[in-house]
Amino acid sequence: MSRVAFTVVGGGPVGSLLAISLARHGYAVGLYEGRPDSRQTSVYQGRSINIALSDRGWSSLEKIGIGDEVRQQAIPMYHRAIHGADGELSKLPYGQEGDAIWSVSRGGINEHLLNLAEDEAGIATHFEHRLVDIDFTTAVTTFELANGEQRVVEADYAFGADGAYSKVRRLAHNLPRFSYSQTYMPQSYIELNIPANADGSHQLETNALHIWPRKDFMLIALPNTDGTFTCTLFLNHAGDPSFESLREWPAVEAFFEANFADAMAVLERPVDVFLEKTAAPLFLVQVFPWSFNRKVALIGDAAHAIVPFYGQGMNCGFEDCAELHALIDRYDHDWERIFPAYENARKPNGDAIAELSKRNFVEMSDLSGDKRFQLRKQIEAKFSERYPKLWTPLYSMVTFSPDVPYAEALRVGDEQNEVMESIMAMPGIADDWDEEYVMERLHDLALQTFGAHQ
Amino acid sequence: MSRVAFTVVGGGPVGSLLAISLARHGYAVGLYEGRPDSRQTSVYQGRSINIALSDRGWSSLEKIGIGDEVRQQAIPMYHRAIHGADGELSKLPYGQEGDAIWSVSRGGINEHLLNLAEDEAGIATHFEHRLVDIDFTTAVTTFELANGEQRVVEADYAFGADGAYSKVRRLAHNLPRFSYSQTYMPQSYIELNIPANADGSHQLETNALHIWPRKDFMLIALPNTDGTFTCTLFLNHAGDPSFESLREWPAVEAFFEANFADAMAVLERPVDVFLEKTAAPLFLVQVFPWSFNRKVALIGDAAHAIVPFYGQGMNCGFEDCAELHALIDRYDHDWERIFPAYENARKPNGDAIAELSKRNFVEMSDLSGDKRFQLRKQIEAKFSERYPKLWTPLYSMVTFSPDVPYAEALRVGDEQNEVMESIMAMPGIADDWDEEYVMERLHDLALQTFGAHQ
Repeated sequence: MSRVAFTVVGGGPVGSLLAISLARHGYAVGLYEGRPDSRQTSVYQGRSINIALSDRGWSSLEKIGIGDEVRQQAIPMYHRAIHGADGELSKLPYGQEGDAIWSVSRGGINEHLLNLAEDEAGIATHFEHRLVDIDFTTAVTTFELANGEQRVVEADYAFGADGAYSKVRRLAHNLPRFSYSQTYMPQSYIELNIPANADGSHQLETNALHIWPRKDFMLIALPNTDGTFTCTLFLNHAGDPSFESLREWPAVEAFFEANFADAMAVLERPVDVFLEKTAAPLFLVQVFPWSFNRKVALIGDAAHAIVPFYGQGMNCGFEDCAELHALIDRYDHDWERIFPAYENARKPNGDAIAELSKRNFVEMSDLSGDKRFQLRKQIEAKFSERYPKLWTPLYSMVTFSPDVPYAEALRVGDEQNEVMESIMAMPGIADDWDEEYVMERLHDLALQTFGAHQ
Repeated sequence: MSRVAFTVVGGGPVGSLLAISLARHGYAVGLYEGRPDSRQTSVYQGRSINIALSDRGWSSLEKIGIGDEVRQQAIPMYHRAIHGADGELSKLPYGQEGDAIWSVSRGGINEHLLNLAEDEAGIATHFEHRLVDIDFTTAVTTFELANGEQRVVEADYAFGADGAYSKVRRLAHNLPRFSYSQTYMPQSYIELNIPANADGSHQLETNALHIWPRKDFMLIALPNTDGTFTCTLFLNHAGDPSFESLREWPAVEAFFEANFADAMAVLERPVDVFLEKTAAPLFLVQVFPWSFNRKVALIGDAAHAIVPFYGQGMNCGFEDCAELHALIDRYDHDWERIFPAYENARKPNGDAIAELSKRNFVEMSDLSGDKRFQLRKQIEAKFSERYPKLWTPLYSMVTFSPDVPYAEALRVGDEQNEVMESIMAMPGIADDWDEEYVMERLHDLALQTFGAHQ
């Protein structure tokens, strides 16, 4: 009997990881990607936000049986390096001592997973195969090749892992009862670059995520292994200041000088790049269902395109793969049960990280520069260190607690928020925050709120 | 100089009313409808929910200068006639003495408005013109005629008034930064019919909206002027019971007997009709922006398809027209200002009535049959009668208060809800509800909450 066959549409990191997971379960897998093979021609120029991987990503890779090789090429960032408008630098740790998020090259991780897929797992990869149609009842897919030829591919099942602009998802629009939402953020973004020093070292501190929080807009910088930083400027699409309002050299230069003076010294032609590039939009996509006729399903950004402000996009996609990986075992390859279990398990978490990511723009761009916010973080960190079972800060739940589902992190985070609002409303909190009575009050409130769960 | 020209896509009630409003402002208007002219061939069979019009609809018609002629063909419904599962009938008034919502034939009102458009306002109407394309920068539209011919129509501006499945809106999907959501409700619906008595009279009470609330599903009936009732059965798409689970004659008959015994006696072949018809889905659509390049805009269901549970769909569409009518005067025909003012004024209200309508399924299907809900309504009605400036019940704000925007009704309603939760939590409220101390407590709470606004 021939093996059960899967078509995976999309050869990005999530599609590649999914293909490996399916192949390791004994399935015949064809991986189809519209773009050329990035290992032969560079396709990662200009558009991709540098990727942050964190514990959910690592944990998911391990669950699928991929060790820590990827981490060798990643740079740990232990804290946020906050560049104040006055040029002052401050540090805000991401979690407890040693906790880090990791800056990885999207291209690098993708190529690593593609190599694994081809070498180890024997998956057939097909580049420059652009999906033009999918039959949602038979999982038959039709691709257009670079020479214009069409190719029809049969399989038992198919996955759309084709990213935020997913063609599989767009074709699903015409299915009955398909709920769909796409929401544009007011901000758009462009990428900028900080080159390496002549000796290949970084011009800014290496092991940090640099943020220039300016409330309505912000600049961030993530380190690369070659000594450069990939920077992203998030700025409103319209209004003042915005990509629309800043059109002339002198105005753009004045904007950078006024807001990013210290970055100006190291950025590569920021004003020219700003004027040359077209800003890319930021949007969220939420859909339901994620699977159709127990034949075709969506995964990763195709199922839940989110905004990058929590650094969780790829982590969430990898978690989708890990969940599916576990369900194949739990339901012993019964896809009649795997598909619904997969979408029911992941949909609430996809929605939760969408919400958390949206909210985190405010946190990154406004509150990170806000003394009161930093004070609140300090109080939480102190309390959490003393009572780790009673309190894990929201950021740590999302980033360093792969066993806490996103939906649970969102719920608990909202409850913590109410508790901390009471604490921050205590008279004299700015001066007394390190006093014992504050810890006691917080302990009382936390016990009231979370005691029953512990 | 030639007159400024508008293309209105969609010849339903909203498109017709908009066309009249534009023509009365001196514009040259072409009205294009994909279906045949209903005045020559009946196109209103099977699918359209009977329409409830209320004060917002009447008020909007008056603002555009259309008197009360339509009301001559409408049947006032002064209360809900609630048919209990035990066959018991109870009445729940809609508002104060004399307040009514009005049952109108969608076809009737549409034809009336089309006649007005052609006769009085000199609008050119074009039926069997199916929109195939629109240029969002020039407002040029392309239609396909019944014979397959294509016709290109130039105009200065265009409106998409083409309903819940709007083609204009679907074409707008590809525009940059277009936020969109479509959400399916768990319920679907079919229409049933109650024929007239032999003498042309109604088999059930005429001046009432009949509801058979059964929590997860419900049947409603609206009177027609010919003695019939148009009934709608709202039932889950899947699950038990549902349109999916009820597939066999005996099961459907048992379902009707168990839940709608008194209706069974008057409904026309309900079991056959249930088995013959395909249930239609219920969905909401929310988008932003509503206007594009100051050239093209959406209006009515095309901009905000809602569910029918508040009877506000056409009222809201007419309000869109009335708002636009007023803005043309306020901004003296300056469409650079009218378009943004229109969408900014109407979008929050479209969102609010979408939310209110979604919530009202629970109210209609569950709470209407719930004694506690009826008690709460009674307390509110008594209080509102005594302190009309302090308290207008939510239903009355939405239905009988055209000067209160939907968004304001939603906000105030949520505050009222909190107040009434406290009142309903008072010990012994079921027995004491008519006691003076309850009114006093409610007065205190209402003053605290709303006093500052009065």
